[in-house]
Amino acid sequence: MYLIGIDVGSTTCKAALYDPSGRMISIASREYEDLFFYPKPEWCEYDSEKLWKIVLLCIKESIQASKVNPIDIEALSVSVSGESIIPIGRDGRPSYNGINWTDKRDQSYKPQREKIDREIGALRIYEITGYPINPVPSLVKILWLKDEKTEAYNRTWKFMLWEDFINWKLTGKAILSYSTASSSQMFDIRKKRWSTEILETFDISPDILSECLPSGSVIGNVLPEVSRETGLSEETLVAAGGWDQSCGALGAGALNEGEACNTTGTVECITPVIRKPILNEGTLSTGLYCSPYFNDDTYVFFAWFPTSGAILKWFRDNFADKEIELANMSGRDAYDILVELANQSKPGASGLFLLPFFEGSGAGEPPTFNINARGAFIGLRLSHKKSDVVRSILEGVAFQTRVIIEKIEEIGIQIKELKAIGGGAKSEFWMQIKADITGKKVILPDVTEAGTLGAAILASVASRYHQDLTQAVKKMCREKKVFYPQSELTKTYEKIYNIYKSLYPSLLPIFNKMESLLY
Amino acid sequence: MYLIGIDVGSTTCKAALYDPSGRMISIASREYEDLFFYPKPEWCEYDSEKLWKIVLLCIKESIQASKVNPIDIEALSVSVSGESIIPIGRDGRPSYNGINWTDKRDQSYKPQREKIDREIGALRIYEITGYPINPVPSLVKILWLKDEKTEAYNRTWKFMLWEDFINWKLTGKAILSYSTASSSQMFDIRKKRWSTEILETFDISPDILSECLPSGSVIGNVLPEVSRETGLSEETLVAAGGWDQSCGALGAGALNEGEACNTTGTVECITPVIRKPILNEGTLSTGLYCSPYFNDDTYVFFAWFPTSGAILKWFRDNFADKEIELANMSGRDAYDILVELANQSKPGASGLFLLPFFEGSGAGEPPTFNINARGAFIGLRLSHKKSDVVRSILEGVAFQTRVIIEKIEEIGIQIKELKAIGGGAKSEFWMQIKADITGKKVILPDVTEAGTLGAAILASVASRYHQDLTQAVKKMCREKKVFYPQSELTKTYEKIYNIYKSLYPSLLPIFNKMESLLY
Repeated sequence: MYLIGIDVGSTTCKAALYDPSGRMISIASREYEDLFFYPKPEWCEYDSEKLWKIVLLCIKESIQASKVNPIDIEALSVSVSGESIIPIGRDGRPSYNGINWTDKRDQSYKPQREKIDREIGALRIYEITGYPINPVPSLVKILWLKDEKTEAYNRTWKFMLWEDFINWKLTGKAILSYSTASSSQMFDIRKKRWSTEILETFDISPDILSECLPSGSVIGNVLPEVSRETGLSEETLVAAGGWDQSCGALGAGALNEGEACNTTGTVECITPVIRKPILNEGTLSTGLYCSPYFNDDTYVFFAWFPTSGAILKWFRDNFADKEIELANMSGRDAYDILVELANQSKPGASGLFLLPFFEGSGAGEPPTFNINARGAFIGLRLSHKKSDVVRSILEGVAFQTRVIIEKIEEIGIQIKELKAIGGGAKSEFWMQIKADITGKKVILPDVTEAGTLGAAILASVASRYHQDLTQAVKKMCREKKVFYPQSELTKTYEKIYNIYKSLYPSLLPIFNKMESLLY
Repeated sequence: MYLIGIDVGSTTCKAALYDPSGRMISIASREYEDLFFYPKPEWCEYDSEKLWKIVLLCIKESIQASKVNPIDIEALSVSVSGESIIPIGRDGRPSYNGINWTDKRDQSYKPQREKIDREIGALRIYEITGYPINPVPSLVKILWLKDEKTEAYNRTWKFMLWEDFINWKLTGKAILSYSTASSSQMFDIRKKRWSTEILETFDISPDILSECLPSGSVIGNVLPEVSRETGLSEETLVAAGGWDQSCGALGAGALNEGEACNTTGTVECITPVIRKPILNEGTLSTGLYCSPYFNDDTYVFFAWFPTSGAILKWFRDNFADKEIELANMSGRDAYDILVELANQSKPGASGLFLLPFFEGSGAGEPPTFNINARGAFIGLRLSHKKSDVVRSILEGVAFQTRVIIEKIEEIGIQIKELKAIGGGAKSEFWMQIKADITGKKVILPDVTEAGTLGAAILASVASRYHQDLTQAVKKMCREKKVFYPQSELTKTYEKIYNIYKSLYPSLLPIFNKMESLLY
């Protein structure tokens, strides 16, 4: 008995085959090389049929690589990048190109955002959907199509997100999970259905949206044509999946209140599991997104900031020629060499601080998601070495993680531990710094692709192999290593953190001046 | 007819032989490899006899290399690093080790500084001497010896600075210039004599200080034993020289009000010539040192900050492995390669700012010479490249230069042009940035060692070959290139400068927190 977890991420599609103990049997992946195109500089569209072909290919290759009998694959489920829309016409073909979540057309959907603010209000739409007003969610993109491409809008049968699109292609049924639906900014996350208030306000018919089910619900069986193209059996069940950050958290083993996933990838995301949504002025100003989670009535907060591993990559690409050369010569990873260098520096990087807002701020201290915010190294002395600069990057990201954790705990959510995933979690040194700075236990799960494992866990429950998520997580998730805060260092970092906290407020007037004067 | 200019700097001694048209015939130099020693970590002492041997060696080698007949060398003069003291006993031998100006003993002479502040006052001693209270000038070192090594103090015949020490060794006469005397913080720069008020307050006998003369005055002839050791003729005149920043300014051709020298070395120094000393709360809080200059009753301000070229060196040593390798392979200078890179960035370094206070602030916006101040890169984006970082260094130094120039002009001193010397002046690209940011004409003099040329100019007047400094400078100084401000860029930089100016005030509370919390 086997399960497939598919992770259709922002840049790469992966399909992985697991056994019910969570062991990965095979994996196939494809980067979206030619998927996206840019009709205008800020626009980002794609051909949904191409995306579907990539998904098919990954499924097919993962089955081939596994050498298992497809009849033994009981179920599959899909983790997806949220928000991106795919308008499908009544003929089953796209009525408009897919619009990616990164699309920034028409000054980042300013008229649509203003309309939402005017007709529903920033706090109200956040209270309903858990999603703050910004240029990303599906709603602004659908409203733009309604305003600017009325003909295409009128020809549209369904505005799908990636999950219902793939589920529909797999089974013929346009169904998506509550989890993914909440990335649309149209889903009432308490009532667990499309928000009548929002749809009526903007005159959007509920018929043009797919049906919503809890993650892990059975949607149906694989269609014959999909079976032919991929090698999947028609017996294999397709289950409702989820939004990728949530699937990653599940794959990391986060299930109950007190547990949080901490993804250190290009971006940094803290995803605590909570018992019920807390949506008010405070959580809105802290920049906490809220989304239905997987077991019963739990939810998650997504608290993220845009540049984390991205800063280390920036440093590597620009200032680490020697380390890259060393890596090429020795067959090692340049990041590993840089992190070893950071270990030569002392806690606090000898007084050097990094503010990690290289593409604006994120969750945390208001103003959150402030595009005027910028990165800064502060406290430089001639005695600082490259090792101090690298260490300041690792520490700056951890300090900002702590800012976010404190904000979350201020509203009464205790975070007992962080389950660390993403490329950054490969660095044990960085994870120890995280533990020392946040004062939290950092758990490194024994998983390389948490998103696909999370989807496979949902599939295992749909197939009834595991009776519920608690059992599934117990069987399929394991811990690899635990990093405990070292009390001496936590004390040292406490003082340094107090300085870190004051950097953003102090620099805000400068950032605003830079924005207004430079452009 | 030839002249020798000797520059006894902080790290290197140079002797250069010039003809009266200012053409350098030969030069010899020696770094002070084993000169300094450190009886305690913060102390810095030296054996003055060793220093004298180095000076002798440089004179000898410069004469040998020149192949001129020593009888044709009419005069010589010495440019010196200021403040450092040499206590000489009545037997003509040191009564204590030399104490270097960088010495930071007893928490940087705190008791002595407090005594000066209490018994004379910060403004008053500045009004008399042009020198603010700090751990550097000769006075604090002499007071320390009086307090802590009373026996050695009592055995001392003369407390010499480097200039009178070398003049005394050369001629048997303990004489120094007003220029160098003013680095002692005991010289009344208006009355042009040792300050009775200061000496009486601290019970220092005027007999233990050398005689003071205007720079370019004849002191005497070379002693027979010096002649034997160096090859100098006993006919050669020794003239009073000057403090090294002033000699450099003279060698750069700065002579009259409106002209300023701008040294870009490890440190950055702006040295405008002024008609009379302006010494008040304002100039003190701006950190402007004042010292008698060379022609008639002119003076100079020294307005400096500690890290300029030092930051570029720091960047090269830590983040430019590729450029260093490229330099090694091509026989070029790594700095040239870095500056070429900076040229790939745009004016304003795409919104990246450098605050160049890597070893504390200097002259400019108060608090000046603030050791709590630190360096910072602010405004970082993922799109910034190494070229932007290098450009931000060049621009940050130029912005701080402009802050200082504006402070000087606010008190009514107009600066028409900057005569650029020091290692940084070798970069035409940097000098053009200086012109564009400051809005001043930047003149690159045709001189490689401005300090030795300045000393040779003083010697030429002493020998009466040139009738006065105006004629000497006209004959001996030439311009190599002029950089004019480009009005379009000056306008662009105006906006950016307004942001730069706000960085230090905005970061001050952070710097203070860093200092109080980190240590």
